Amino acid sequence: MNINHSEKIIKAIQELSQYDLLKGLCHEQQESSPMPSAKVLEEIVTLCRAVLFPGYFGNASISKQNLSFHIGVDVERIHHILTSQILSGLCFDKHSENIMEDGYTDFPIRNKDDIRLLRERAECISADYIAALPNLRSILATDVLASFNGDPAAESIDEVIYCYPGIRAISNYRIAHKMLELGVPMIPRMITEMAHSETGIDIHPAATIGTHFAIDHGTGVVIGATAIIGNNVKLYQGVTLGAKSFPLDDQGHPIKGIPRHPILKDNVIVYSNATILGRITIGENATVGGNIWVTEDVAPNARVIQSKAKK
Amino acid sequence: MNINHSEKIIKAIQELSQYDLLKGLCHEQQESSPMPSAKVLEEIVTLCRAVLFPGYFGNASISKQNLSFHIGVDVERIHHILTSQILSGLCFDKHSENIMEDGYTDFPIRNKDDIRLLRERAECISADYIAALPNLRSILATDVLASFNGDPAAESIDEVIYCYPGIRAISNYRIAHKMLELGVPMIPRMITEMAHSETGIDIHPAATIGTHFAIDHGTGVVIGATAIIGNNVKLYQGVTLGAKSFPLDDQGHPIKGIPRHPILKDNVIVYSNATILGRITIGENATVGGNIWVTEDVAPNARVIQSKAKK
Amino acid sequence: MNINHSEKIIKAIQELSQYDLLKGLCHEQQESSPMPSAKVLEEIVTLCRAVLFPGYFGNASISKQNLSFHIGVDVERIHHILTSQILSGLCFDKHSENIMEDGYTDFPIRNKDDIRLLRERAECISADYIAALPNLRSILATDVLASFNGDPAAESIDEVIYCYPGIRAISNYRIAHKMLELGVPMIPRMITEMAHSETGIDIHPAATIGTHFAIDHGTGVVIGATAIIGNNVKLYQGVTLGAKSFPLDDQGHPIKGIPRHPILKDNVIVYSNATILGRITIGENATVGGNIWVTEDVAPNARVIQSKAKK
Amino acid sequence: MNINHSEKIIKAIQELSQYDLLKGLCHEQQESSPMPSAKVLEEIVTLCRAVLFPGYFGNASISKQNLSFHIGVDVERIHHILTSQILSGLCFDKHSENIMEDGYTDFPIRNKDDIRLLRERAECISADYIAALPNLRSILATDVLASFNGDPAAESIDEVIYCYPGIRAISNYRIAHKMLELGVPMIPRMITEMAHSETGIDIHPAATIGTHFAIDHGTGVVIGATAIIGNNVKLYQGVTLGAKSFPLDDQGHPIKGIPRHPILKDNVIVYSNATILGRITIGENATVGGNIWVTEDVAPNARVIQSKAKK
Amino acid sequence: MNINHSEKIIKAIQELSQYDLLKGLCHEQQESSPMPSAKVLEEIVTLCRAVLFPGYFGNASISKQNLSFHIGVDVERIHHILTSQILSGLCFDKHSENIMEDGYTDFPIRNKDDIRLLRERAECISADYIAALPNLRSILATDVLASFNGDPAAESIDEVIYCYPGIRAISNYRIAHKMLELGVPMIPRMITEMAHSETGIDIHPAATIGTHFAIDHGTGVVIGATAIIGNNVKLYQGVTLGAKSFPLDDQGHPIKGIPRHPILKDNVIVYSNATILGRITIGENATVGGNIWVTEDVAPNARVIQSKAKK
Amino acid sequence: MNINHSEKIIKAIQELSQYDLLKGLCHEQQESSPMPSAKVLEEIVTLCRAVLFPGYFGNASISKQNLSFHIGVDVERIHHILTSQILSGLCFDKHSENIMEDGYTDFPIRNKDDIRLLRERAECISADYIAALPNLRSILATDVLASFNGDPAAESIDEVIYCYPGIRAISNYRIAHKMLELGVPMIPRMITEMAHSETGIDIHPAATIGTHFAIDHGTGVVIGATAIIGNNVKLYQGVTLGAKSFPLDDQGHPIKGIPRHPILKDNVIVYSNATILGRITIGENATVGGNIWVTEDVAPNARVIQSKAKK
Repeated sequence: MNINHSEKIIKAIQELSQYDLLKGLCHEQQESSPMPSAKVLEEIVTLCRAVLFPGYFGNASISKQNLSFHIGVDVERIHHILTSQILSGLCFDKHSENIMEDGYTDFPIRNKDDIRLLRERAECISADYIAALPNLRSILATDVLASFNGDPAAESIDEVIYCYPGIRAISNYRIAHKMLELGVPMIPRMITEMAHSETGIDIHPAATIGTHFAIDHGTGVVIGATAIIGNNVKLYQGVTLGAKSFPLDDQGHPIKGIPRHPILKDNVIVYSNATILGRITIGENATVGGNIWVTEDVAPNARVIQSKAKK
Repeated sequence: MNINHSEKIIKAIQELSQYDLLKGLCHEQQESSPMPSAKVLEEIVTLCRAVLFPGYFGNASISKQNLSFHIGVDVERIHHILTSQILSGLCFDKHSENIMEDGYTDFPIRNKDDIRLLRERAECISADYIAALPNLRSILATDVLASFNGDPAAESIDEVIYCYPGIRAISNYRIAHKMLELGVPMIPRMITEMAHSETGIDIHPAATIGTHFAIDHGTGVVIGATAIIGNNVKLYQGVTLGAKSFPLDDQGHPIKGIPRHPILKDNVIVYSNATILGRITIGENATVGGNIWVTEDVAPNARVIQSKAKK
Repeated sequence: MNINHSEKIIKAIQELSQYDLLKGLCHEQQESSPMPSAKVLEEIVTLCRAVLFPGYFGNASISKQNLSFHIGVDVERIHHILTSQILSGLCFDKHSENIMEDGYTDFPIRNKDDIRLLRERAECISADYIAALPNLRSILATDVLASFNGDPAAESIDEVIYCYPGIRAISNYRIAHKMLELGVPMIPRMITEMAHSETGIDIHPAATIGTHFAIDHGTGVVIGATAIIGNNVKLYQGVTLGAKSFPLDDQGHPIKGIPRHPILKDNVIVYSNATILGRITIGENATVGGNIWVTEDVAPNARVIQSKAKK
Repeated sequence: MNINHSEKIIKAIQELSQYDLLKGLCHEQQESSPMPSAKVLEEIVTLCRAVLFPGYFGNASISKQNLSFHIGVDVERIHHILTSQILSGLCFDKHSENIMEDGYTDFPIRNKDDIRLLRERAECISADYIAALPNLRSILATDVLASFNGDPAAESIDEVIYCYPGIRAISNYRIAHKMLELGVPMIPRMITEMAHSETGIDIHPAATIGTHFAIDHGTGVVIGATAIIGNNVKLYQGVTLGAKSFPLDDQGHPIKGIPRHPILKDNVIVYSNATILGRITIGENATVGGNIWVTEDVAPNARVIQSKAKK
Repeated sequence: MNINHSEKIIKAIQELSQYDLLKGLCHEQQESSPMPSAKVLEEIVTLCRAVLFPGYFGNASISKQNLSFHIGVDVERIHHILTSQILSGLCFDKHSENIMEDGYTDFPIRNKDDIRLLRERAECISADYIAALPNLRSILATDVLASFNGDPAAESIDEVIYCYPGIRAISNYRIAHKMLELGVPMIPRMITEMAHSETGIDIHPAATIGTHFAIDHGTGVVIGATAIIGNNVKLYQGVTLGAKSFPLDDQGHPIKGIPRHPILKDNVIVYSNATILGRITIGENATVGGNIWVTEDVAPNARVIQSKAKK
Repeated sequence: MNINHSEKIIKAIQELSQYDLLKGLCHEQQESSPMPSAKVLEEIVTLCRAVLFPGYFGNASISKQNLSFHIGVDVERIHHILTSQILSGLCFDKHSENIMEDGYTDFPIRNKDDIRLLRERAECISADYIAALPNLRSILATDVLASFNGDPAAESIDEVIYCYPGIRAISNYRIAHKMLELGVPMIPRMITEMAHSETGIDIHPAATIGTHFAIDHGTGVVIGATAIIGNNVKLYQGVTLGAKSFPLDDQGHPIKGIPRHPILKDNVIVYSNATILGRITIGENATVGGNIWVTEDVAPNARVIQSKAKK
């Protein structure tokens, strides 16, 4: 290699390797607890889908005779790899030991007893998650039905389960939300981001969403962390349920955890590209038209639309 | 494993394996006709691209001497795997035997003669599809030219073919639309959904679209199933050509197959995030501005824009 | 195979193989300079991430002791494969020899000395790129901080680096922009398109963007080639910084290279789905509300919002 | 490319593509019945091992609770892919329709009814094969025990099952022999060749072998198609049980199917590199020393060794 | 599926799943300590080769500048994955807790403290193994030289290192032998079996072998566990250094651990297919001819050959 | 990590990275000419098989219509990747520039013009190799016939081509031998070693072998570099055609290139495990029995066998 190039490269390597300057941009993994892995979470979500909608996803050719074999093997595998991922999440999470004061901190030295306790907690959470799967299936069944009934282009239930990006995003959200309820850090967010990347639908795993939920087309939908959505709600592509502004603390940082996203009551419909901001309430049966910006409450049964376009 | 966890898991497996409760959420594949496979369809689309734009896609180093070898091998492979995918689609499609009354139905028992007839039909459709590829190339050439000529940032035809998400989405749509015309169920939708996931552009395969079609940037574009688009039309990101509302049948379900999406005549331009809803007509040479909601006809040569923002 | 089908297929192969009709739709690769490969660029971006944020990306378990080993191996690998990709880009680029007059041209015959000069240029650019990585890391650190401080839902710096689509899109943009500055053709666009596909955020690699840049949620964001963005700017999902219209040359083709996208000064915030078009200036500290269409300058410290919706 | 080279290559392609000269060296696959696949057979053997020795092979973590799930899923998968491989074997086999007169023949045109009958036969054989697996496990258990008891270097039963090439070769033989008994063509030979390649042990699937069979080290062992081996026999590396000579038919071709390999009675031991040829009998409890050539019967309890070496 | 087949298969699954009958043929893995993995050991051996012969193996393009980066990354990776494999080996090994009385035993229940101690032991052994690599390289250098100097067909040192199966088998042996010396169970045997499968050369990892060792061609070579080989020894293909017979204990099982294989002094050459059996000594500088069976001591400088063949 | 371990590992890395001590054990690859790759050679051999025996190997379903497409694509791919591998071989080969005086030498600094000349030579050799493929097919056809006619266990020509390790080893030899004749260094040896590893048959690529050559079973066969084999010869497993001894030069190194392996005239048969050493001649139609050591000429039509075993 040209000597001049070689020197440039060696200099760059030295600069990039200055450990002490890296504070906060470098993650020192602990041998026995690597980062949660997007690839493994992908497998977990795929297995959950195979268990929730047997025969649609997964390689298996399902029949009455073999259903329990496949469910058994898949559920076991979920438990096994989910346990290790939850452990990674727990180790990753600085909250779990209350040592995070600011974003940039030194890496915690964990002793081996800590790891062992975290491992037991991970296994316990994983089992609780498995136990929640049957209920998850019941709720997702209502979402599938809502999408099928609400879309004249839907040819069959099969098509809805197998092809609809809305169902994919809602599945990931419901899988992730349950994990978040069980106290798993980091991973729920990764799972909803996977769906975000695939479908353009960005649902924060902390959002609260009722049954019979439908999202049509979906690209650009954003549902914030403290949003609350009732039953039988339908959103179109590009809808934002966002925060209007948020109070800052003394250092000018946003205060975390304050309710700041909208509440949508039962049977609300929001058309494409509408933006609903702040902790406001859209009343039962209300309809929000497309391309508008809503920052105030909407009464039950009301219908808000954009002011007339100029020709 | 902790006995308590073990019991939870076994209980969940039992609940998840109750076959009789699974009606509609379980797909019993038939041995000789598995589900259409997203992975195989991915290969088909990749091969179609390699055949339509030789040298840009596929591994081959194309020259005048070897062009026919590569086209020959690729076309044969398309025919082979497309036949099997179409067969899967035909078997999957409950319509093809008129046994679907509602979304939830028992699985059809097909006898072996049915399968044989379906196999012959699949092979025939696949050959017809191959026969349509030369024409598909001619039309796509007009789309490439439209994108190149309409975008000051386009450096070369090469860049347009190789990098533009609009071209990718339109290619998948044209590939899928042809299959849908030939009567292939399910697969066309899967192919446009693949492009939707990659590009954020959601074109229903049943839409009708003329030549010289261009989509710039594209994320969030939605084109509904009964939309009709003329020649030389250009859409920007976030444009919706959607349905305004749809009539319900006696049970409150939407009536399928009714024209409900807009008609865009030749030379229409629609700017970003505009939402055009219902079976309305946007006349020749009309321009629709960004971020507006259009639910009424627009006259030829007209220009509609958003009402003034407040400062 | 059915003889009838066989004939159809052979006829299609013949039509698709007519080399002389393929002008412009066929890319004749040169043996020693294949097309830039999306897969290899993926690896380059992954390696850059591993070098910029050690321990977050890449397989390594990073420690103070081994940091330089990993950086060394990764940087070397980047240099090696980036050199070959840049060479592909240079060969691909018809500008680099001034032989492109129109989109459709015959394939240049390069002699072996040309290739050798291009190879040396590629190696030189690649080394310069490596030399720029330390500075790239400093700038990205400001972007990470901006996202963390500006989002009440962000749990930790870790989460921002590891999960936020905005950071992913900005990283790809900064990686690509540096390459474009060094004169690499085609590849920068491919790298930003990779992020576009993953995140729905479409930043042209030629755009100019300051430090502490944040994009929240991000799906549908479009930033045009001549846009100029100051420091500490924040965009929400669906925001377009686009061109309003562009002058055509004598043949009716758009004139390339003219400034046509907005300038956003320091500390500007643009809310979701706002569309800002043309070479206008949004002044310092200005706020642009959601779902509006802005085609005129906005004064410093101003706040523009949508006109009232109708109820 | 250099024009001279290009011409050479095109000429070679033409010569190599002369279909009519290819008689016997070209295999025309039938669309619905490709060649048996070494890769798929590899999977079948791996699955059989996972079922026969649960927990040693396969990915599963086996427990009392989950054993039946894993066995169920694996056995189903074996049935599914074995059926298709057997079908390939039946189609490949020219005997199955009595159309083979000589090695070189034209390709049979099968009608679709034939294929259907063959498919049913394949499914039936596959099910019978599954039904034989429990007995196969019982016999292999005796082989494992024989290897463990006969080798002072064996540390545990685990090591024998998991590492011993003899056990691997004998497993493949027993798997293949059962298939051959059920009338599967071609595939049994492929399965024993897989073990031959891995271990250097070449057992013809048609050989007859009793229980408690052990092969130590094994490289170079050859056991011919008509060999008959009793119970509790042990062979060392390099042992040949071969044919001495074989009668030719009128055209000078060897007559197939005549017994021509040795019979080894119970408890025989053959040391390394011994060659035993022809339809002779090695009596019960006899020992054959290494590096000798035996072409005559050996009496029960006898011990034959090489004549003294010269110093 | 045919009902009759279905019943056969279900019956087979039930029989194969009878846990209580599986004693000894089923391996119940412990969650946190799976079986040593052939695939991971393959990676370890590949990394060791990359470290021992930099630039020949591994993907790296080695130079004076980057050598330490590559060695550093590879050695770290070896340490990491070797630790986990050694842990698997220690868990697998029933000796390590003195609970094995016979081949067939129930699975040990390990408490979590045991696992922790084993993990520490594994990490310690792995570090000691790393520390031994420089010496391993020195010894392998003598083997490479011996093969190059002793083979007129060897074109270069490069060819010997890169292509010779003898070097591959000796490398694996030396890697495995060192592990065995450090007390690693099971894994050394797996590593030599890998070479056995690739090269047909079967060297027991417990054998003792001096410097400048060469094996030419090698297929069929067997070197037993208690064999002792001096410096500068050369073996040809098919040579066995085996046991003649071995004493049995009261239950008729072979007594383990007794010296039972030959001693070869310095400078011995053994020609192809010679079989040397029992704890005999082949004296310094002796030559053993091909295809003979040697069971008695051979004097220093002696030459033993086969008795004359009959013509 | 334990500090003590950490220190051990860092010390080992330092020792292993001492570049100056690595003379001869380290291969410094040149950026533009990496080592020949076993994986790529594997692909080349697979493609050659697909071209030589169309329909047996490769993925294609061959028919009269598509044969030339497949041959065309495969031959082109062979030419492309073979050229790069030959270039690697030429760069690797120190002979090609006469700079090798001893095994251990410093790395040659090649200037870029050298590389260019070597590249042209590589392309030329590759084209010549392609041109030789039709003749290679004719010769291999005689080998296939010989194996079929000489083996009573062969069920069909198909089985011989598809399953016989002898045919696999002979194919690799003939492919490699042709390359060696064309002056390709290193690669021919790698190709025959691939077959050696798979089949246990070790044929040096420089050996000279006539038509109708058959090897039965084959494990352990060794054919030396200067061996000459006539037409219609058959070898069984374990046969060695080796060197007896070889003259040394002044420094005690073997003199390379002297004929030192046997000559086998037409129609010779050699039975299993026979060892034939030195530049002797086995006359026409002679038969050599198994397990014997032959170091003197054998007359035409003679039959030599082992002296009587002792009972």
